[in-house]
Amino acid sequence: MKKKLISLMMLMSAMSMNAAVGVDRIEPTNWYVGMKDASLQLMVHGKDVRSADVEVSYPGVRIDSIARLDSPNYLLVYLNLKGAKAGEMTLCFKQGKQTKKVKYLLKDRDMAGDKRMGFSNADVLYMLMPDRFANGNPHNDAFKTMRDKTCDRTAPSLRHGGDMEGIRQHLDYFKDLGVTALWFTPLLENDGPNDGAHSTYHGYATTNYYRVDPRFGTNEEYKRLVDEAHSKGLKVVMDMIFNHCGIDHPWVADMPSKDWFNTPEWLAPENQTAAHQKKLGTIDGAAKVNDKYLQTSYKLTPVLDPYASQVDLKETVDGWFVPTMPDLNQRNPHVMRYLIQNSEWWIETVGIDGIRMDTYPYADRDGMALWMKTLNNEYPNFNTVGETWVTEPAYTAAWQKDSKLSEKNSYLKTVMDFAFFDRINQAKNEETDGWWQGFNRIYNALCYDYLYRDPHHVMAFIENHDTDRFLGNGRDSLALKQALALLLTIDRIPQLYYGTEVLMNGTKEVTDGNVRRDFPGGFPGDEHNAFTQQGRTKEENQMFNWISRLLHWRQGNELITKGKQTQFIPQDGVYVVARTLPGRAVLTIVNGTSHQRKMHTQRYQEVLQGAKLANNILTRRTIDLTKDITLAPRATMVLEINAQQ
Amino acid sequence: MKKKLISLMMLMSAMSMNAAVGVDRIEPTNWYVGMKDASLQLMVHGKDVRSADVEVSYPGVRIDSIARLDSPNYLLVYLNLKGAKAGEMTLCFKQGKQTKKVKYLLKDRDMAGDKRMGFSNADVLYMLMPDRFANGNPHNDAFKTMRDKTCDRTAPSLRHGGDMEGIRQHLDYFKDLGVTALWFTPLLENDGPNDGAHSTYHGYATTNYYRVDPRFGTNEEYKRLVDEAHSKGLKVVMDMIFNHCGIDHPWVADMPSKDWFNTPEWLAPENQTAAHQKKLGTIDGAAKVNDKYLQTSYKLTPVLDPYASQVDLKETVDGWFVPTMPDLNQRNPHVMRYLIQNSEWWIETVGIDGIRMDTYPYADRDGMALWMKTLNNEYPNFNTVGETWVTEPAYTAAWQKDSKLSEKNSYLKTVMDFAFFDRINQAKNEETDGWWQGFNRIYNALCYDYLYRDPHHVMAFIENHDTDRFLGNGRDSLALKQALALLLTIDRIPQLYYGTEVLMNGTKEVTDGNVRRDFPGGFPGDEHNAFTQQGRTKEENQMFNWISRLLHWRQGNELITKGKQTQFIPQDGVYVVARTLPGRAVLTIVNGTSHQRKMHTQRYQEVLQGAKLANNILTRRTIDLTKDITLAPRATMVLEINAQQ
Repeated sequence: MKKKLISLMMLMSAMSMNAAVGVDRIEPTNWYVGMKDASLQLMVHGKDVRSADVEVSYPGVRIDSIARLDSPNYLLVYLNLKGAKAGEMTLCFKQGKQTKKVKYLLKDRDMAGDKRMGFSNADVLYMLMPDRFANGNPHNDAFKTMRDKTCDRTAPSLRHGGDMEGIRQHLDYFKDLGVTALWFTPLLENDGPNDGAHSTYHGYATTNYYRVDPRFGTNEEYKRLVDEAHSKGLKVVMDMIFNHCGIDHPWVADMPSKDWFNTPEWLAPENQTAAHQKKLGTIDGAAKVNDKYLQTSYKLTPVLDPYASQVDLKETVDGWFVPTMPDLNQRNPHVMRYLIQNSEWWIETVGIDGIRMDTYPYADRDGMALWMKTLNNEYPNFNTVGETWVTEPAYTAAWQKDSKLSEKNSYLKTVMDFAFFDRINQAKNEETDGWWQGFNRIYNALCYDYLYRDPHHVMAFIENHDTDRFLGNGRDSLALKQALALLLTIDRIPQLYYGTEVLMNGTKEVTDGNVRRDFPGGFPGDEHNAFTQQGRTKEENQMFNWISRLLHWRQGNELITKGKQTQFIPQDGVYVVARTLPGRAVLTIVNGTSHQRKMHTQRYQEVLQGAKLANNILTRRTIDLTKDITLAPRATMVLEINAQQ
Repeated sequence: MKKKLISLMMLMSAMSMNAAVGVDRIEPTNWYVGMKDASLQLMVHGKDVRSADVEVSYPGVRIDSIARLDSPNYLLVYLNLKGAKAGEMTLCFKQGKQTKKVKYLLKDRDMAGDKRMGFSNADVLYMLMPDRFANGNPHNDAFKTMRDKTCDRTAPSLRHGGDMEGIRQHLDYFKDLGVTALWFTPLLENDGPNDGAHSTYHGYATTNYYRVDPRFGTNEEYKRLVDEAHSKGLKVVMDMIFNHCGIDHPWVADMPSKDWFNTPEWLAPENQTAAHQKKLGTIDGAAKVNDKYLQTSYKLTPVLDPYASQVDLKETVDGWFVPTMPDLNQRNPHVMRYLIQNSEWWIETVGIDGIRMDTYPYADRDGMALWMKTLNNEYPNFNTVGETWVTEPAYTAAWQKDSKLSEKNSYLKTVMDFAFFDRINQAKNEETDGWWQGFNRIYNALCYDYLYRDPHHVMAFIENHDTDRFLGNGRDSLALKQALALLLTIDRIPQLYYGTEVLMNGTKEVTDGNVRRDFPGGFPGDEHNAFTQQGRTKEENQMFNWISRLLHWRQGNELITKGKQTQFIPQDGVYVVARTLPGRAVLTIVNGTSHQRKMHTQRYQEVLQGAKLANNILTRRTIDLTKDITLAPRATMVLEINAQQ
């Protein structure tokens, strides 16, 4: 603790610089010695710092190169730290006759890179939005020093006050539920304004890559949250965005170089009204675009299409996601180096176990591959999941590390199975046994797992913060149980979305906020508290207990992590997927129809392996396998067998 | 011609054997010397021939092995012909004290195997059903010696009398039209009965692998047809079926071995009524099945699904297509050898340029791969297309030779693009610009061409004999032109279906025969003759001339065979695909909406390459590319540009 305090003081001293020096910010704010890659980019910011000379005198540290970009206020210093020990080094900036010294901290790493173990198919990820989960510290809900000074729970798209302290206070809730990893939507500073109806509560418009948003807490609180999660056996996955930042990021008003962003021409003074220019840096939510503005088509196909036109490819990759999210140019090696270091810094600084990368195919493919290759080299057992939002396995599979489908290796270990998401959400409304409908959709999608290099490392889900909730505007827990039983037993890394365990529903019809509602009981004054058995309704407890039983059964179960997967063509609307080990099996059985169905156990002998009895792990009842099994309308069964029984 | 006559006499002498010898049939009926693979299987049939010993005394020929199977009436003799010259060899069969000599002809090949050039993306295949195209010889319409003795043009599913002579008489029609290859549905003997409503006119129930059905003509007429087609620059593709034969094939009543067919148990006497047994060999269309009968699920997914259950896989591959089509067991090496030789025999004997293999994934994967590997070795430049009826590129791509998607190599060079067929038939009814609808379907399917090892060798089509005709029950030539313009300009081997050029329509609602109607003018007494300009209606001529112009433009055009393909994301329902060479391009432009649209030429500069004028090859009008192009509702344009112009 003492050491920590000293480190903090040293960090602060590094940042407290004489304004006259022309250095007011260095990023990363500190660095670590003993990395496999000993190089380090320092982004130095300060008035007219570009023209400064730099010297450093510290054992084991030498300057590799210095890059002077278009803005007079940036200087990039590339160091080599090979052999350097932890300590405080001094950077010496010379401008004309002036010489200024700035201290910079090099720390020891908490552990070697290969000791960091990522998430896997042994885990279940629980995704939540910090602003909407629990408000553990009402004192950090709003700050007068920030562009958005409000906190208003009545507005679906404004900040509600949830924070990391709220998450920390509920770590036991996750333990009880039975998930093993937490994915928070982005925590970094989003210092953008609100326009009365919308704000940056979602966190996808970064304005500072080295600082947690104060409304969520401090960097130190983040570290504490991760440490406590770890002590309870919970992993933490950090949401990052390399494709774009927020328009209020300092880079926008003073671009380090002309090609720091893709197609930034529309922001140039000659393309803007004087009034609009004035607003730059404090832009009001939706910047006014002109004919120089290029928005992404949101079509991800051109990135892989062998016949893609250049015009389509440029639109996809270089177009902006929205006018308030400038599109970073990952082809610029300085930009990419900055982003790569930033991800390493958070791993080293707070000890996250995984990364979820937003809008993966929208960013430059080569740049992102370099990032993943670098990270895999530094942290070979770490894991990153990329958001690859196309509902075809043939698409997402091409983005996985070592894919056979792509000449370019992405080095991305985990991709998101949007096909499963898409098919399960269509299947839930279909009763027919048509070959392309109902659970045949799941069957027909899983068939294509041969497209993946490593299907075990594909992440599946039935909903997330960008989609309708699985329940829609209803409460059909039968359909939900079928979807969850499949999600949690097929050979995937499953991801849940907060609140589903207590039947939270909602669609995006009106606004995104409708699928991002506050978790009941997480906020001061909540009358309904779904965090506790006592607080939950009967229905909520039924769902919570149902999924909790499955999640705890799943933990550490080799049927899940190593079991051979077998699926059967749906028969009369009944779909069966099995995972087997010699003498053991689990069968997930879903009756997709509103009629009673018979499951002919004889047909499934290759996975039942002669077992006469099964345990229904959802009800703890014993099932006689020597007879056909009667399935109630829309029943879900998860049967575990041991052939020795 | 003299040589041919002598060959014919020798062949006949080889077949005219003394019944007492116990040899009444040897297949192949003759063979060829100088094959790369010098081995030869002779299937000898005759009463109790199994117990005979065999000797052969002919320079360069030796017996490798002899296989005695379950039936007493079959003997398989495996020879090696390495170094043998053409001539008549004598096979000596000894049974007890009896010795019988049978002559067998070894012929020279017409050309070396590598001289046989298959079809490619330079070709356009015209598929037709011989029974339904033209009746050139009314004397072969029916035979009293065959099980089905009728010919009845009023019945959609009975024989209509079309024949090879009818095709031969219209070779100039194909030349005028502009196609370069003909694919006939199967020509081999289908000596099955008719049940009053159905017969084997379609040809997919083979009863003799070495004889053309007499209703279509003789083997010699087949050879003449191929020769004359070749003399007019037309290739011929032969339709073959290895998955099954017809229930009236002699193998059924007297199975060479118990495992000659998959799951034949239901045909065994103990599983049949006495009355039914009596009918075997003259079975009445639909054999009565019992609980031993296994029908294929028609689901092709288990063959590739990494999670396929054994029960599903067996059903797909070993199940019978229909009760009247016994499922050949290609895992039996004798069966496979028989089939491989049969395909080689037809190549050598009539000189076909390609093979279309029916129900490809229904047959044993390893057996079929062995076939293709053997054929590729013998005829490296020949081509075979397999029917791979799943509408996902991820499926069909896995069946192509050297596919990255499969651990097992199929060695099959050409697969059928059922995705294109599926998408174009859905798109024709959709006007919306929804990302998954209209021409976006084609765009979104072509994107996945990276799944194919060799997309240039994929065969595309918009309809065939097993599907509704593209026009359905209507005459929407605007939709048809859009589909055909795409089909004939994208980088595929295109296949047309007979009669589309004169607006033949039809759906399968009532019966398959409805999409297999007689070509007007092909049959005695036809009042309407669509073979001639005079006979065609105005509408028919418009369609014929339109497609003919495109087909002739396509012939030998390097834009088609070598042009780089570029597609553009559909804009306002307008889809553009281009093929380019330096300074040259062809753009196919389809307006999928019922509204006038503007095509902004500026957007397409990367393929227009600065050209200022284009030639609309469908209208021969010149188009000004310096302005936006106005597209009429549902317009189709095929623009050729030369940047030097």
